[in-house]
Amino acid sequence: MSDDSNLTTPTQGGDRPAGWRDDWTSGPPVSAVGDRTPPDTLDYPTLTYVVTGRIARITFNRPAHGNAITSDTPRDIAAAVEHADLDPRVHVILLSGRGKGFCGGYDLGMFAERWQDPGADESRRSVHEVGVDGTVLDPMVQATNHNPAGQWDPMVDFAMMSRNGRGFSSLLHANKPVVAKLHGFCIAGGTDIALHCDQIITADDVRIGYPPVRVWGVPSTGLWAHRIGDQRAKRMLFTGDSIDGKTALDWGLAVESAPADRLDEVVEDYVARIAAMPINQLMMVKLALNSALLSQGVATSAMISTVFDGVSRHTREGYAFQTRSATSGFKQAVRERDEPFGDHKKG
Amino acid sequence: MSDDSNLTTPTQGGDRPAGWRDDWTSGPPVSAVGDRTPPDTLDYPTLTYVVTGRIARITFNRPAHGNAITSDTPRDIAAAVEHADLDPRVHVILLSGRGKGFCGGYDLGMFAERWQDPGADESRRSVHEVGVDGTVLDPMVQATNHNPAGQWDPMVDFAMMSRNGRGFSSLLHANKPVVAKLHGFCIAGGTDIALHCDQIITADDVRIGYPPVRVWGVPSTGLWAHRIGDQRAKRMLFTGDSIDGKTALDWGLAVESAPADRLDEVVEDYVARIAAMPINQLMMVKLALNSALLSQGVATSAMISTVFDGVSRHTREGYAFQTRSATSGFKQAVRERDEPFGDHKKG
Repeated sequence: MSDDSNLTTPTQGGDRPAGWRDDWTSGPPVSAVGDRTPPDTLDYPTLTYVVTGRIARITFNRPAHGNAITSDTPRDIAAAVEHADLDPRVHVILLSGRGKGFCGGYDLGMFAERWQDPGADESRRSVHEVGVDGTVLDPMVQATNHNPAGQWDPMVDFAMMSRNGRGFSSLLHANKPVVAKLHGFCIAGGTDIALHCDQIITADDVRIGYPPVRVWGVPSTGLWAHRIGDQRAKRMLFTGDSIDGKTALDWGLAVESAPADRLDEVVEDYVARIAAMPINQLMMVKLALNSALLSQGVATSAMISTVFDGVSRHTREGYAFQTRSATSGFKQAVRERDEPFGDHKKG
Repeated sequence: MSDDSNLTTPTQGGDRPAGWRDDWTSGPPVSAVGDRTPPDTLDYPTLTYVVTGRIARITFNRPAHGNAITSDTPRDIAAAVEHADLDPRVHVILLSGRGKGFCGGYDLGMFAERWQDPGADESRRSVHEVGVDGTVLDPMVQATNHNPAGQWDPMVDFAMMSRNGRGFSSLLHANKPVVAKLHGFCIAGGTDIALHCDQIITADDVRIGYPPVRVWGVPSTGLWAHRIGDQRAKRMLFTGDSIDGKTALDWGLAVESAPADRLDEVVEDYVARIAAMPINQLMMVKLALNSALLSQGVATSAMISTVFDGVSRHTREGYAFQTRSATSGFKQAVRERDEPFGDHKKG
């Protein structure tokens, strides 16, 4: 080898206390890569990606819409996670949302109203939808499959929804730890995202739940049983009831909970503690623990749940909800869905 | 609903024999999507994507290099598979390679020689490598981690290799059936790709095997046991021996085998038979059968195999092979690896 000097490993540091922490900014030694560094900031249609120190911060960025999920969201998440995984400086990923809450679920107003009138509101098509004409992501294709007067194809629905779950699951399959900070609300499809994160930290007053299980939805990523066990998962999904952060902590869904005005501080403290660990140690424990989790059959739960989610939109009840949405508006239909359960506008 | 006429389902056809096959070009009815159709052809750095009728043809396109795998390959495969999955016209995906063989494995000459001298041969950096400076895909970062005089980090290796497996696994996790046509050779990393396909059809004289298991490699996607059972997988990986197409058929690794000059005909006949099935039927049987396959622990096999693959490049034997490659050339080192097994240049 002609140029060993370029190939030396980071300072060994065995002659100093905790010398393995010296290399705080981590990554390959500058002598090897020069000024070649991965990007510190990236912008996506639905989120921002910013690296500060050892932390990659992925932040939903549609606050005016409660960070509602669009067809861009799963792709944006997977792309940002890949960047964090490839960047040797990053030790931990922090996922959160701008505005009043973490994520209010799918942009159902758009879907439910639009599938009745697919030509309407073309301006809401996002940049990533360019190029999806005629695919299962094309609202016109889904509208064709969502006609109460016709027959529906569960696999056209599955092809669309499984793509979402695949994107969200990049958080679970990421090599590096992912911490979700939940404030305000984490509802419906928002839980499909949050439950893929390795650790959840809640605001005490956050609302977490899946009310669409009352009609027109089944949690498509199938993670509830794996996260909180059979009894508590059924408690939530037999009613569509939501829980707050204190209950999430009590049930082990969250690893920490804090008053809303102290949430940032608690999260930053915890993420900094994770970031103080060597990245190889973090990756090895995540891989070892994921091995146990995946052995529980997460993939099969997700598959059958995604099929059932599509079925729920094509039952007589589901069609009735959809038609009511189209004639009276999505908000009114949701009110009628939730009022008997006494938690309308509460989650 | 104001415009039901746009939302009618395809011709029911119950009044004709096999009316469900009429809609041969499938997809949503033209009345619903107008002239909105997904792309029929897409080009990627390492492969081409062409839709003909109900078949999406993904074809490796580096024939001068034996279709050797680069850091683009996993990304290209995943992107092409997503297009096929989203296109409602596509019923089956056919994966094959241009030139003398299906795939000769990783572009190891590039890796093994280059890791010794990472500054060399910048012209071989592919378009996708733009933007990977300082990431684990940066050859300089891997070189730093591959220095016999230093310590190595298994998780830096894992971060790079697991990305490959993740991309290849899109073939297994695709919603639609994937058929691989193997001709000439399917060696080393080429098998990591082929074994992710739902069905394999071989030329009788194809060579299939993983000789790098003799030194400097472990099949990182861990699929051999799941594909051919424990005994036969150990038969191949305790020796690095290869098999031909007839043996692959005999062992159930391939579902069909044919003389090389009849391979195309046999593959086209079989793929046409699959394409004659409704896409929803195909997706449902694939999901049901994958449920059984994934329950065997495919994800854990892949994880631990990828870790071991990295270990094998950092054993004393692995470093010796690497150093020999750097001083005598990769081809010479491979000759020395294979000659004791009597199959150099044969597989």
